[in-house]
Amino acid sequence: MLNFEYYCPTRIVFGKGSIARLPELIDKSQKVLIVYGGGSIKKNGVYDQVKQALSGYELLEFGGIEPNPKYETCMKAVDLIKKEKVDFLLAVGGGSTLDGTKFIAAAAKYEGFDPYDILTKGAEVKDAMPLGDVITLPATGSEMNYNAVISRLSTNEKLAFASEKVYPRFSIIDPSVTMSLPERQTVNGIVDTFVHTMELYCTYDVDTPLQDEWALGLLKTLILEAPKVLENPEDYNLRANIFWCATCGLNYWISLGAVQDWATHGIGHELTAFYGIDHGQSLAVVLPRLLKNQKAVKQEKLAKLGREVFHIKDKNDSEAADLAIEAIERFFNSIGMKTRLSDYGINPQEAAEKIKARFAERDTKLGERAAIDAQVSYDIVKAC
Amino acid sequence: MLNFEYYCPTRIVFGKGSIARLPELIDKSQKVLIVYGGGSIKKNGVYDQVKQALSGYELLEFGGIEPNPKYETCMKAVDLIKKEKVDFLLAVGGGSTLDGTKFIAAAAKYEGFDPYDILTKGAEVKDAMPLGDVITLPATGSEMNYNAVISRLSTNEKLAFASEKVYPRFSIIDPSVTMSLPERQTVNGIVDTFVHTMELYCTYDVDTPLQDEWALGLLKTLILEAPKVLENPEDYNLRANIFWCATCGLNYWISLGAVQDWATHGIGHELTAFYGIDHGQSLAVVLPRLLKNQKAVKQEKLAKLGREVFHIKDKNDSEAADLAIEAIERFFNSIGMKTRLSDYGINPQEAAEKIKARFAERDTKLGERAAIDAQVSYDIVKAC
Repeated sequence: MLNFEYYCPTRIVFGKGSIARLPELIDKSQKVLIVYGGGSIKKNGVYDQVKQALSGYELLEFGGIEPNPKYETCMKAVDLIKKEKVDFLLAVGGGSTLDGTKFIAAAAKYEGFDPYDILTKGAEVKDAMPLGDVITLPATGSEMNYNAVISRLSTNEKLAFASEKVYPRFSIIDPSVTMSLPERQTVNGIVDTFVHTMELYCTYDVDTPLQDEWALGLLKTLILEAPKVLENPEDYNLRANIFWCATCGLNYWISLGAVQDWATHGIGHELTAFYGIDHGQSLAVVLPRLLKNQKAVKQEKLAKLGREVFHIKDKNDSEAADLAIEAIERFFNSIGMKTRLSDYGINPQEAAEKIKARFAERDTKLGERAAIDAQVSYDIVKAC
Repeated sequence: MLNFEYYCPTRIVFGKGSIARLPELIDKSQKVLIVYGGGSIKKNGVYDQVKQALSGYELLEFGGIEPNPKYETCMKAVDLIKKEKVDFLLAVGGGSTLDGTKFIAAAAKYEGFDPYDILTKGAEVKDAMPLGDVITLPATGSEMNYNAVISRLSTNEKLAFASEKVYPRFSIIDPSVTMSLPERQTVNGIVDTFVHTMELYCTYDVDTPLQDEWALGLLKTLILEAPKVLENPEDYNLRANIFWCATCGLNYWISLGAVQDWATHGIGHELTAFYGIDHGQSLAVVLPRLLKNQKAVKQEKLAKLGREVFHIKDKNDSEAADLAIEAIERFFNSIGMKTRLSDYGINPQEAAEKIKARFAERDTKLGERAAIDAQVSYDIVKAC
């Protein structure tokens, strides 16, 4: 096991009716900015629940955070915060809204010249505004980590940052609010969670049997619950299990002391930046091809996954790994997720060339051994 | 899944050489009281590592916290803290030292008449001194929770309290320091971890498939690693895996939203209070008999455990549950843990009567359905 440090001070308030507990979590003296996205929270009743819970608070609102939240939009919120002297940020929505709010929290307190440096130059986040969230989409795990991914319109870039300062003070997770999600979003979230788990598990072995058990247990649970939740979208327990899987897929509990990959996300982010396909779609397209390309170095963990999750028997490691990759793609397809670029009207050759050019320009090297460079990425995307 | 709240702001610093990171974790302005136990830390080099890391700090020491820390001893530390105006408590040792330090932290700030009320009357812990720890024994999980168990000599009682105020600010876990542990302590810790997992898993099903996978994954890992670590006590990775299992056995990650039991601990604590046997020994004696006694209501989870952990095949739930209980006891025996009261020179009949009398007097009702009263406890202990 590798040395590790783990710290997460976010209070998770999970369950039916938990939005009503907001007044326990935000001091009444605080001037609160509610940050949200495209307005789905006004249709599904979450906005009303939040407003009711916070009646008597001094509230402001900032809507319009995009899926793949834009730097430009976030900076408008920062202006509002400075003008109105906001004390506390409450993100209400999915991972994009929360990621945007994390960046807003850091940018509002940034003392350097340009907060964009946090994303491009790794400028230190020395302070951030306090934030909490009502998370409404099981997918990104942003509710229990300190990461955020932000896009910039003007440069077609999708960039990440991480800082302990932007941990949510609390995350309210009421799985009931996901019952009305469009199926496409439910499926995207399941695939996102599946791929987070793969990024954290499917690397090389550093002798972490407990973490491996937990990662594989998470995959098994997703495979068990996913078809059921698509069949019964209003079943509370299924929604609760899917949400808790999503949170645990990226709170790092399954990988402390283990090795992480993140190449599928690295390539997927580019597909989203260039072609606007959903994050979950981009991952579903890349993962099988990346695993195939990297089979030689991932074979041991892939074979273990194949045996424990997909019950593959009587095969050697190489065969079990191949079958595991096929089974993963079949699982994605079985829940209605398409796994080929052509399914989204994208020419693989063209996409491969674009990504190769960008990675070459930036000297990008992805993956647990930094082995996935521009040329390898080209090979992977061309096969998508 | 049940509603739940989860919050743990403890920073875990895990790995080789992590004691040297103490200066990053305690501000140099703090007057630090090092709290320890019987002095084993002076033999295994941990004391020297701590002193070296904190050279230049204003340090005081308080040794002599007992296994099953005594209220009377803790209160002596409180006197010292008040006299010397200590700012920060650093527990260095096992779970008992840390539990004692948690109580000291709360008692030193207690404003009521008698801090013993925290233990007996559930008096609210409104404030506590900041504390951190260098944990040297994989067993109690105290390094990542807010619980503590304290004993009182004068009344032969063993009592628990819990408060978010006594969460360690940090816990340093260097598995290297456990290589020199006596085998008995290693085994006690493995059994303690196993039983924590059982208390959190083996109740009734509220549809928590991920949590169940993780609990069973933890048991599998213990069963995999335990014989190896006894064979190779100086293997770092084995020590690391056992320690991380112990921490995860009681940080509640495996049971959020699930139902908890704690009857084995409730009865075991009495055996320790009356007869002075080790905590791990008391649990190993009680668990198999308690599971047998409660088989009717635990059968479903026991059968699942039997199939997934002990590979029991082609049996109905009742048979699989019986075989699982036998397999657990066999596992304890296989690592050198004796599982009968007579092995410790205790008369089961006498023990059963003592515990029955005490539980009747206190109207104790243990277990996930509060079904284990004085008479049921008598039946269980008599069968031990």
